[in-house]
Amino acid sequence: MNAYDAIRSFSKTLENLDKWMEKAGETAKARGFEVDVLAQARLAPNQFAFVQQVQSACDQAKYAAAYLGGKTAPSHPDNEKTFAELRDRIRKCTGFLATVLEKDFKGADERKVAPPWLGGRWLTGHDYLVHVAIPNFFFHATMAYAILRHNGVELGKMDYIGGLPTREREA
Amino acid sequence: MNAYDAIRSFSKTLENLDKWMEKAGETAKARGFEVDVLAQARLAPNQFAFVQQVQSACDQAKYAAAYLGGKTAPSHPDNEKTFAELRDRIRKCTGFLATVLEKDFKGADERKVAPPWLGGRWLTGHDYLVHVAIPNFFFHATMAYAILRHNGVELGKMDYIGGLPTREREA
Repeated sequence: MNAYDAIRSFSKTLENLDKWMEKAGETAKARGFEVDVLAQARLAPNQFAFVQQVQSACDQAKYAAAYLGGKTAPSHPDNEKTFAELRDRIRKCTGFLATVLEKDFKGADERKVAPPWLGGRWLTGHDYLVHVAIPNFFFHATMAYAILRHNGVELGKMDYIGGLPTREREA
Repeated sequence: MNAYDAIRSFSKTLENLDKWMEKAGETAKARGFEVDVLAQARLAPNQFAFVQQVQSACDQAKYAAAYLGGKTAPSHPDNEKTFAELRDRIRKCTGFLATVLEKDFKGADERKVAPPWLGGRWLTGHDYLVHVAIPNFFFHATMAYAILRHNGVELGKMDYIGGLPTREREA
């Protein structure tokens, strides 16, 4: 799995997340509540709410694509309040991810990645992908899923995983 | 990130998980409850409890190492009830992961992976890693973390991520 494959898998999971949010909307309708109240739902009082989990999943994917693909990350201000706005944020993010092409990731493993929060230190592109981008991306995507599940949205593991490129058994 | 790197990152995260469980023990002691009650904690009534999240994280790592490294997965029966037993399960799992060497993963991308739950269909080793092993492993590790957080164990993102191989800024 190279950086390009990782970014493609982030994109797939963000599209899955969009579908979980659609299901949340159906749950809200069936149970007679406003789906946007879930934007502020959280699992612990000092943990990110759903809205921040979605923003963080998007940003982990966006910055990984930018750092490893040698691109400038577009600015996506964290000002969403509703599910419709968050789903638009997801589309903006996957739209950017699609602009970073396989060839842009050439040499990604050796790139020097120095995000501000490392305070002047840096990671190789390879280490950034393995130790930061992949674990963090799936952390925030799973937390978003967990918050919906905790609030009664009926999601299952295949909603999380999405489609699989399985192959037929040979004759 | 090749299969070997992925397995090493699973191993690191399982060691982090062991530390979250140690912190949970400290929280339980400080607040005067029995830590093992958290083994049955869950975020939704029809979702896996903590014990199953830990078993599943271990199994995702174990089967990925076995399938992609051409080894037979050791049997680890799901009979744990206590935190001590679960931490022992984690040690058994990381012990097995350590036996699968970098050279064993040669050609992992092209291996044919046909777990029973695919019902006779199969995935390439590459697709299994990208679409199944990585998302699923971090799903269950994050769910275990989320259940502890939800129950008041004070964990932060750096507990999740663990140590980073950062490098010094050049002079």
